[in-house]
Parts: sequence; structure tokens; C-alpha cells
Amino acid sequence: MWDVDARLVEEITDRVWAKLSASALPASAHGLQSLVDSGACRLGCQAKAATLPPDLAHTIDHTLLKPDATAEEIRHLCAEARDYHFASVCVNPTWVSVCARELAGSGVEVCTVIGFPLGANRSVIKAEEARVAIADGATEVDMVLNVGAIKSRLLSEARQDIHAVVQAAGDRACVKVILETSLLSDEEKVEACVLAQDAGANYVKTSTGFAGGGATAEDVRLMRRVVGPSMGVKASGGVRDREGAEAMIAAGANRIGASAGIKIVRGEGGAKGGY
Amino acid sequence: MWDVDARLVEEITDRVWAKLSASALPASAHGLQSLVDSGACRLGCQAKAATLPPDLAHTIDHTLLKPDATAEEIRHLCAEARDYHFASVCVNPTWVSVCARELAGSGVEVCTVIGFPLGANRSVIKAEEARVAIADGATEVDMVLNVGAIKSRLLSEARQDIHAVVQAAGDRACVKVILETSLLSDEEKVEACVLAQDAGANYVKTSTGFAGGGATAEDVRLMRRVVGPSMGVKASGGVRDREGAEAMIAAGANRIGASAGIKIVRGEGGAKGGY
Repeated sequence: MWDVDARLVEEITDRVWAKLSASALPASAHGLQSLVDSGACRLGCQAKAATLPPDLAHTIDHTLLKPDATAEEIRHLCAEARDYHFASVCVNPTWVSVCARELAGSGVEVCTVIGFPLGANRSVIKAEEARVAIADGATEVDMVLNVGAIKSRLLSEARQDIHAVVQAAGDRACVKVILETSLLSDEEKVEACVLAQDAGANYVKTSTGFAGGGATAEDVRLMRRVVGPSMGVKASGGVRDREGAEAMIAAGANRIGASAGIKIVRGEGGAKGGY
Repeated sequence: MWDVDARLVEEITDRVWAKLSASALPASAHGLQSLVDSGACRLGCQAKAATLPPDLAHTIDHTLLKPDATAEEIRHLCAEARDYHFASVCVNPTWVSVCARELAGSGVEVCTVIGFPLGANRSVIKAEEARVAIADGATEVDMVLNVGAIKSRLLSEARQDIHAVVQAAGDRACVKVILETSLLSDEEKVEACVLAQDAGANYVKTSTGFAGGGATAEDVRLMRRVVGPSMGVKASGGVRDREGAEAMIAAGANRIGASAGIKIVRGEGGAKGGY
């Protein structure tokens, strides 16, 4: 379904797999290839992850993450999400309870970010931040991978970091893992997808939008190829218009993170974009 | 001692003070002017905050906060800090325990960042992140102001957010409050200084280095004018060379956050700089 240089991906995945098998990863990770085949996605987000949404608006996480966003801007974001039937609003943790109130009964999910945007927090803090956000009303949590752990070849730590948030979320929230693809080699992207899937996350996601690079169709294709149909793939960062959003979906994304959601669904171009 | 347009600052401070007096701030905040005069700095950091350090190296927080920093780079940073007698290393929370081990007995402090770099986390998470970091060996914690709360005129919430971290730190760590000056008006900078001082923080600090703007001599002068001699002022973001560092100190800074610490103390120019 998604066009990709399958041979290249297989080659990288094989190499990653050989490395992971030789590492001190927990037993479950060693059954990884079967997980990729059978689908490791937990219930609750499974349907969303596995099925392409019926229309573009339902793929969009309507996003406002700038640190100086005001309560008024957040309420406005919620009103827009309700009007346009976006999948969720995606906001910083400080605004989750406001969004939960504004969106009660609307069918729009409340998504927040965990360990964002550097991902270099302690796992116990990421888990607790997820717990508090869910208690505040979040139903989706987008956590940032510990990129430094991947770069330091601390793969078991990177997996455990994801797993801590997955455990904290339980069945109460969907967990997306932000890879920050602009900082990773292709091999590291594959590794991160494999770790996210093995740790029980629901989605892999490209970018925070704060690291000088956003989603590319190539990365989305690669990520979809690795995680298969059982997980979601979210493209985020730099998706500015309908053309860009459709390119991401064609590449395998089933969720789009964007601040330009209204321009995307209206088919308008030239948005300032970003995240 | 620090040259500044005193009349302008007084005018802004008076306006801020009138607003704060009319707000729902706790009683202690209403005794603010006397706090500014008498010094609100807690013991432990008081000497450092009140006294200009004996040499340039002792003013520098040797900083590495990029998300893809590796364990090897962190250990290298520690070795440099030890060799050059920097005030501290400043790293993300995931690396605090590594730094505490590397720097044991060296006299170099371990500084970390809390709610970094957006500051839009829940206060309870910032406090817990500080507690865990201190348990890991951090002796200085640089927390980010909830900028959105300031922008939303939720001043009591912004003060409480700082106070939560100050309480978590107790006498075990020095608390610096990062204002993210590039996002604030002059009036908001004054407000933030006043709230930080009233909440019992030890330092105000200009920038995260992640928001597209760094320290300016004007901001440092303004911040020093507001907090007086009883608190520290840390200039961070974009301090690239000795000339820049000395300009910050002349403006009232007694701590410099920089990734270019070695170039600064060696008197070399043209560092890539940043944070």
C-alpha cells in the first residue's frame, strides 16, 4: 500500500535486529519480528491506529504548543477543533484541564505532550507527567523518545523509558512516541520504531517541531514500513497545507499534527505552518 | 553599580506593583518592596548570589542541553568543567546522576533544568522533577517560568509554580527561574522578577536558548535593577565569547550560562555560541 524501498528497509531492519538480539533487551524485545507481524497495539487505540480515518479533519491533531500560548488562545483552539471535528487538540500539560472542560462531550480527544520537546527527562518523571495529564483529562499522550539514550547506544534504557509511559497510561490513553527524526539516522529511526512497538506504544510520530526539522514523506514511509499496519504513524512538524497532509497520508501516516489544521481542511495553501 | 535607566524601571515597577497589589496574590507578595530591599535569597546560595565571583570561570555554568547529547559528551563536559573550575555543569535531568558521579569532590556543582524549555508543565511535575534531580545529585535547578500563565494574567498561578519548585528544593539546591525574556514585554520581565523573588527563588535567568532569543545587556540590567543585590542574575543564551560575558557581568549578571565556556575563559572569539 505504501511505496517504499523495501529492500533498503529490510537491510536496515535486519541490522537493527541483529544488534538488538545481541543486547541486554528484555525477552519480549527478542520476539520482535513476530510483534511487527502480529501487531502490538493495545486495545483502545487499535482501531484508530489500524484504520485510515474517513476524512482529513479526523486525522488532524489541532496543535498549539508555543510556550506563550494564552488561556484565550487555548479556548479558541478547542472551539475550532469542535467546529471542524478534528481528532484532537494537542496542547502543553498546563492546559489539559482547560481543554477537557471545553471539549467535554464533543468527541474531540485531548492530547498532550510528555517530556517535551527534548525527551531528556527521567523516565519516572515522564510517567508521572502522563499520569497527571490523564487525571486532568488527557486521552492521548505524545511522549518524546530519549534521543540521547539512542545516540549513546543505551537501547534498553530507551525502551524502558517508553514502557514507563505506556504503563502509566494503561488503557486510559493512547501513547505516541515522538522520534525527532531530524536528529536520527535511518538506522536509528528503525531502532526507535522497533523499541516503541515492543514497549507497547500505539503510534510513532516524526517530530516535535522544535528541533529544526519536520515530517518528510520518506521518514513516514520508513516508519510505516517498520511498524506495519498495527500501529499508528503521526506526521508532525511543517505540515502546512492540504497537499502536504495528503502526501503524508499517501506515505502511510494516519494522523497529522499541525497548527494549520483549518487551512489544511479548507484546502488553502501558504500557511505559516510549522508546529 | 549597574548602569540602567532607573526612572523607566521605577515607572514599570510601580505599575507592576499596583497590579500585583490588586490581584489575589498571597500576603507575602504584598510585602514585596521590602523583600526587594532586604533580600529574599535563601541561605545556601546567598553568598553566591550576593557576591561577584573572583574570576570569570567561576561564573560559568558549562552547558550542554541538546537532546541528542551522548553519555560520552556529558562525561567530556564534566572533565572540562573540572579542569577549568567552572561553577557548574548544566545538563538535562537524564544526565544528572552521571554528572554527580563524574564531579564528586570536584567543587563543580551539578545544575539541571526543570520544565525545560517550554515551562508549560504542571507545577506538581516541575516540583517532582526537581525532587528527583536533587536526589540524583543536582545542587542547582534552573526552572522555566510558566510564560503562558504570565501572558494570561494568571500571576498567582505563575508565582505558585515557582514556589512549588522552591519548596521541593528546600535548602538542598539553588533555584534559578528562567524568564525566557525574548517572549516577554519589559513589564512582564519586571513582573516575573518580582514573582520569582517573592516565591523565594535564588536567581532570575534570562533565556533557555531554545526560543529564538538570548541574553541582552539591557535585560540583565533591568532584571538586576528589579531584584537588587540579594538575588543572582544569570545571563544565558547567545553568550559566545569573553567580550559578551564581560558585558553581561558589567550589566549585573553574576552567572553566565554558555556552551562556549572554554572559549570565554581563554578569551577566544567567534565560537558558534548559543547555549
